[in-house]
Amino acid sequence: MTRFASSVSNLRSSEIRDLMSLATAPNIISFAGGMPGNELFPLETLDKIYHSLTEKEKQLAMQYGPTNGLPALLESLSEYLEAKGLPVKKNRLMITTGSLQGIHILAKAFIDPGDPVLVETPSFIGALSAFRAYDAQFVTVPLKGDGMDIQKLKEKLETTRPKPKFLYYVPNFHNPAGIIYSEEVKRQIIELLKDQDIPIIEDDVYSDLYFYEEDVPKMQLIKAMDPEGIDVCYSGSFSKILGPGLRLGWMLVPEHIYKKCELIKQSIDACSPSISQVIADKFLREDYISDYLTTTRKEYKKRGLAMIEALEKYLPECVSFEKPRGGFYTWLKLPEGTDSTLILKKAIEKGVVFVTGKTFDPDGVKNDYMRVSFCNTDVETIQKGIPIIAEAIREVC
Amino acid sequence: MTRFASSVSNLRSSEIRDLMSLATAPNIISFAGGMPGNELFPLETLDKIYHSLTEKEKQLAMQYGPTNGLPALLESLSEYLEAKGLPVKKNRLMITTGSLQGIHILAKAFIDPGDPVLVETPSFIGALSAFRAYDAQFVTVPLKGDGMDIQKLKEKLETTRPKPKFLYYVPNFHNPAGIIYSEEVKRQIIELLKDQDIPIIEDDVYSDLYFYEEDVPKMQLIKAMDPEGIDVCYSGSFSKILGPGLRLGWMLVPEHIYKKCELIKQSIDACSPSISQVIADKFLREDYISDYLTTTRKEYKKRGLAMIEALEKYLPECVSFEKPRGGFYTWLKLPEGTDSTLILKKAIEKGVVFVTGKTFDPDGVKNDYMRVSFCNTDVETIQKGIPIIAEAIREVC
Repeated sequence: MTRFASSVSNLRSSEIRDLMSLATAPNIISFAGGMPGNELFPLETLDKIYHSLTEKEKQLAMQYGPTNGLPALLESLSEYLEAKGLPVKKNRLMITTGSLQGIHILAKAFIDPGDPVLVETPSFIGALSAFRAYDAQFVTVPLKGDGMDIQKLKEKLETTRPKPKFLYYVPNFHNPAGIIYSEEVKRQIIELLKDQDIPIIEDDVYSDLYFYEEDVPKMQLIKAMDPEGIDVCYSGSFSKILGPGLRLGWMLVPEHIYKKCELIKQSIDACSPSISQVIADKFLREDYISDYLTTTRKEYKKRGLAMIEALEKYLPECVSFEKPRGGFYTWLKLPEGTDSTLILKKAIEKGVVFVTGKTFDPDGVKNDYMRVSFCNTDVETIQKGIPIIAEAIREVC
Repeated sequence: MTRFASSVSNLRSSEIRDLMSLATAPNIISFAGGMPGNELFPLETLDKIYHSLTEKEKQLAMQYGPTNGLPALLESLSEYLEAKGLPVKKNRLMITTGSLQGIHILAKAFIDPGDPVLVETPSFIGALSAFRAYDAQFVTVPLKGDGMDIQKLKEKLETTRPKPKFLYYVPNFHNPAGIIYSEEVKRQIIELLKDQDIPIIEDDVYSDLYFYEEDVPKMQLIKAMDPEGIDVCYSGSFSKILGPGLRLGWMLVPEHIYKKCELIKQSIDACSPSISQVIADKFLREDYISDYLTTTRKEYKKRGLAMIEALEKYLPECVSFEKPRGGFYTWLKLPEGTDSTLILKKAIEKGVVFVTGKTFDPDGVKNDYMRVSFCNTDVETIQKGIPIIAEAIREVC
């Protein structure tokens, strides 16, 4: 009898993995994934970068680096983040092996078994699995069109004892809900958490992928607002703006939290891949990123608008959704009590996949929503696939 | 007041980080690192591999991959491991973000706070930090020239209650002790652990770097012996045979342990870097590895023999060591009670660094040993640096 650690019993296989293998099966139209389309990666830039590397840089790419990241990348990334108004100098920056690793490290830093943590419902499945891995108890706050339901957050803060260890949230182009937090909601969150010893984990991996320049000001991060009396742990990623295969993200956190995080990272993988860091540094330093983001923003906007158009045209009246203004996802609200797993089964028979609502429910129950991504399918495929999804919904509702 | 998780209080900053920054300082001769010399990386092969990549392979390199690894690499690595006699088909193979991540995942899978785990003294600092991260209690077994002191292991097994969660050991070219386990000691370990529900974690990252072909048969892994009645979790790495900057390792474990490990890895970084995996696959598949290992074995042997020669020539009589027959390290035994930290201070003043003994002591106390690496310094530098170390030892002893 293998004697596993008790916290491990909490980890359950999610549907996600099976979906992912379906999602890459030939002849299947996939609205399931949260990854950039393969055809969107900047391969010419990658070639240019590789060819520009000196012998010394290639050696650096093959060698261990410091736990917190290669100095060159820390420098170019600092500039990139400072330009977004983030208080880099007042905090410590750490390169992580994907932003998920950053969230996992913060989970390990803060959570003792049974500790309550505040999460949105719906919430990012990766963060939920990191929190589950440390036996967190989820205290859920429902999302509205402009962010967390502040009244509910207030109630949960008043009634949850012991106090929650942190609040985790996704400010911009939420995964899965697709929404942007309003400035008002962010201000109210700050008001409620001030001097409460409840840090915020702000997970912002999509904000560069806006459709409308005019949205940028209201997408300001709480980390950038730099509120007094709250420790804000901000995490970001190269996965959506360069390529997830590099496995590179970052976190920007106050010094005293950074110290713990560095020790934890040392025990997990010693350092993030140097080869990826050398490439990401050039991508920022030579400003390849500006042109690339301009191109991809245009393409994702085209896809997002095609998605909205197709959904409006084909969905039955009983299904509603917030129109995405960036990011990767639309989040469909089905009639109350609908089981989106039944819809998924029908859809798979017809050759289309998406992700069911309960996947993103911290309690794993609420299933009358579904996430339909537009990041990984071109306009034509969207126009072909959405009517099929609409048909599957009609057959079930 | 930030409220950290209780297990985090156990994590302490090691000297390693400071040493590492010293180790890369100009004008310092470093015998401290456990990394290949920068000049040894196969950069021409890396170029060849990059230039051979198709557009599709580059897309793969930029995209998420399955949690357990890219299918191509799993295939080529399986062949590589099967050729070493490892029972790949009877187990499950998983690509990890360095072998340290594999060990960290196993630590998380097995350890509840306070659980005893069997470790060697001295032991690999990275593994110790992963076990500390889950609040393990170390039950130490001293090393002799041919492996663990079996009598001591027997005693610890009889007296440790609750039973240890696993035994962790490094079979070949031990870090830091430099030794190879004898077949006899491995057979006795198997005898003692059979049907005890105490898995073995077998951490084998140096065995390809032997000086003498004749040693290969006796270096057979316990995993390859495939003993009945013991779960053997074998971990390996591309760090010493290709480049640590790729952050790629692997673990080969029984199916029921694999399942837990996959879920844990999902919550840590979702998958290992695809870009590194695409490169490592070509490195194995095109058999670049054979020639590269032939070259590096020769170079490390030259360095190792130069190290032995210099140590024999310059060390005072009171210092002894096992002559390395491969790997990266020599482990110097100082007169009992010597404080190698004092020697390190003297050595640093003279421009040379190494790692103190207590760094590798699970209890962080025993300091009358020191680790001197020969992997990262050429013959000339060894001949220049060792007399300085000998001088520092003389000044203290």
